[in-house]
Amino acid sequence: MVSAPSLPPISGLSSTVCVVTGGLGFIGSNLVHALAAAGAQVRVIDALVPEHGGDRRNVAGLEGVETIEAAIGDAVVAEAVADSDVIFNVAGQVSHLASMTDPLRDLELNTRSHVAFLETVRRVRPAARVVLTSTRQVYGRPERLPVDELHPVGPVDVNGIDKLACERFHLLYGKVHGLRPTVLRLTNVYGPRQNLCKDDLGVLPVFVRLALRGEAIKLFGDGSQRRDCLYVADVVDAAVAAALTDDAIGEVVNIGNTVSWTLREIAEAIVVTTSSTTTLPTTPWPADLERIDIGDFQCDISKAARLLGWQPTVDIGIGMQRTAAFYGEHPWYLSSI
Amino acid sequence: MVSAPSLPPISGLSSTVCVVTGGLGFIGSNLVHALAAAGAQVRVIDALVPEHGGDRRNVAGLEGVETIEAAIGDAVVAEAVADSDVIFNVAGQVSHLASMTDPLRDLELNTRSHVAFLETVRRVRPAARVVLTSTRQVYGRPERLPVDELHPVGPVDVNGIDKLACERFHLLYGKVHGLRPTVLRLTNVYGPRQNLCKDDLGVLPVFVRLALRGEAIKLFGDGSQRRDCLYVADVVDAAVAAALTDDAIGEVVNIGNTVSWTLREIAEAIVVTTSSTTTLPTTPWPADLERIDIGDFQCDISKAARLLGWQPTVDIGIGMQRTAAFYGEHPWYLSSI
Repeated sequence: MVSAPSLPPISGLSSTVCVVTGGLGFIGSNLVHALAAAGAQVRVIDALVPEHGGDRRNVAGLEGVETIEAAIGDAVVAEAVADSDVIFNVAGQVSHLASMTDPLRDLELNTRSHVAFLETVRRVRPAARVVLTSTRQVYGRPERLPVDELHPVGPVDVNGIDKLACERFHLLYGKVHGLRPTVLRLTNVYGPRQNLCKDDLGVLPVFVRLALRGEAIKLFGDGSQRRDCLYVADVVDAAVAAALTDDAIGEVVNIGNTVSWTLREIAEAIVVTTSSTTTLPTTPWPADLERIDIGDFQCDISKAARLLGWQPTVDIGIGMQRTAAFYGEHPWYLSSI
Repeated sequence: MVSAPSLPPISGLSSTVCVVTGGLGFIGSNLVHALAAAGAQVRVIDALVPEHGGDRRNVAGLEGVETIEAAIGDAVVAEAVADSDVIFNVAGQVSHLASMTDPLRDLELNTRSHVAFLETVRRVRPAARVVLTSTRQVYGRPERLPVDELHPVGPVDVNGIDKLACERFHLLYGKVHGLRPTVLRLTNVYGPRQNLCKDDLGVLPVFVRLALRGEAIKLFGDGSQRRDCLYVADVVDAAVAAALTDDAIGEVVNIGNTVSWTLREIAEAIVVTTSSTTTLPTTPWPADLERIDIGDFQCDISKAARLLGWQPTVDIGIGMQRTAAFYGEHPWYLSSI
């Protein structure tokens, strides 16, 4: 069994039936580990889309976990959802660049399939709590920092438009059809069980891979953009807290960190942690990435503290140490394609 | 040839190639008449979706108009768009209730097909001006009146979410791919060439049909909700002005009226105009409509005045007279199903 470092037991979800869509992916599989450890009966729905980060090995050996290989829009998921208590809806495409080169595919994965899924939930299990993991990308380039939930939305790429529509559908189905959704807008997340070998699943896994391989981490521009990275165990805690808090029904909640670092500082933290000989050269922005870049970002997470009683607990130094230790114990993450 | 009352010649578009998607429908066909009268070469793209208001008779006998029966997402539209100067993208589903009962269909018609269309335009004719007709429905229930373009968006139904995503895709393709879009958010529109016989294409055509048939117009609740209705010729003028104004590229512009009326007042105006014996009883709100109702609405159209030099010119009394006269001359609109 793959170890699940630092995930606390979640007593409130023991003996419940939890569905995790995208449960073979990065955040989803960390949730699955935590829920299984808490004694929940877990059903994973994952389409194992080849370009994405899902892998059956992420949940291999876990007891009480059933995996259904299906897209969330498929009719077959109705049975898995029918007696569920909580649905963690984590499935989706995260690549911003892929959303720009194949916008219809992103619309399918991040919006249309979710509408189909919501129709299924509405039909077979409207009483389930639904926690959607969305993204701070829906804010686009911030007008002010830190960004609270009242900050105007303004997605700068197809992925952001589709995720925002997905959020709106969840909230609408809450208001009109009686579903019980909570939307979490996540910042950049890092930690165990992240696919490190694909280049467009986020900047952090690429940094981790390059550091662990001793390869140069190229920083676009001057590497001065700020990000409020979050260790995945903190995200898991937030998602569980949301599921257990009726006050969060119908709400949008930022899940980020209380501090931010420049991408250069983040890269340096990874290099120090991994004792890597990696260098950090700068390179001009590629045009296709620069035009959808959002500049500095820092969440305001006071709503999460107020509604969910949640705050991040893992410092970036500690989180990166755990991350490096995990990949040291599970080297296949570094060799997969 | 069907007469086109009150549409001024549009000298700026003579000898241009104009594409009108949804050009067999209500607003689209009125645009086609105006463009043809101005000497433009017009290509209509219309899927003639059975539930919608499109009808070939709306443009019958017009010279210089070619009709392509296709969905805008179809590959076949590339040829029609390839040498176009202006694209009026009017195609879409307008029924709010249908969007709630078949959300996947609305997403297809109001979002996915538009992304496919934008990909086509991007590929074959990125230099064309694109004018998208959207809806004030994207604002949802107003927080304040009148509603300007800085008012927060908050769609209250599937149709509004899909139209808002459609807007965002148009603007994104402007920013990232160099397209030249303008988004018009239309209020309730009435006038000639509207399908009167379907119940879910808007409250105004239903009122007109019932008055012309001498049947009771049932007002939901007390009929006190306010709407800033607009005569279709004014909308045509606004769309043409947008196409001719580079200052409007990348902009969202409200197209509504400077005054509003209660639905009861609007019904009374129709009854007086048509010398109808229609009664105006009230009836409780149907639940499925009440939960997506937006209350009073009044646009702020100062941005349209500033950017487009546009303002409405047709008083509701005059507009309703013209509307009644048109349907008197073209009785098939009242007998179609």
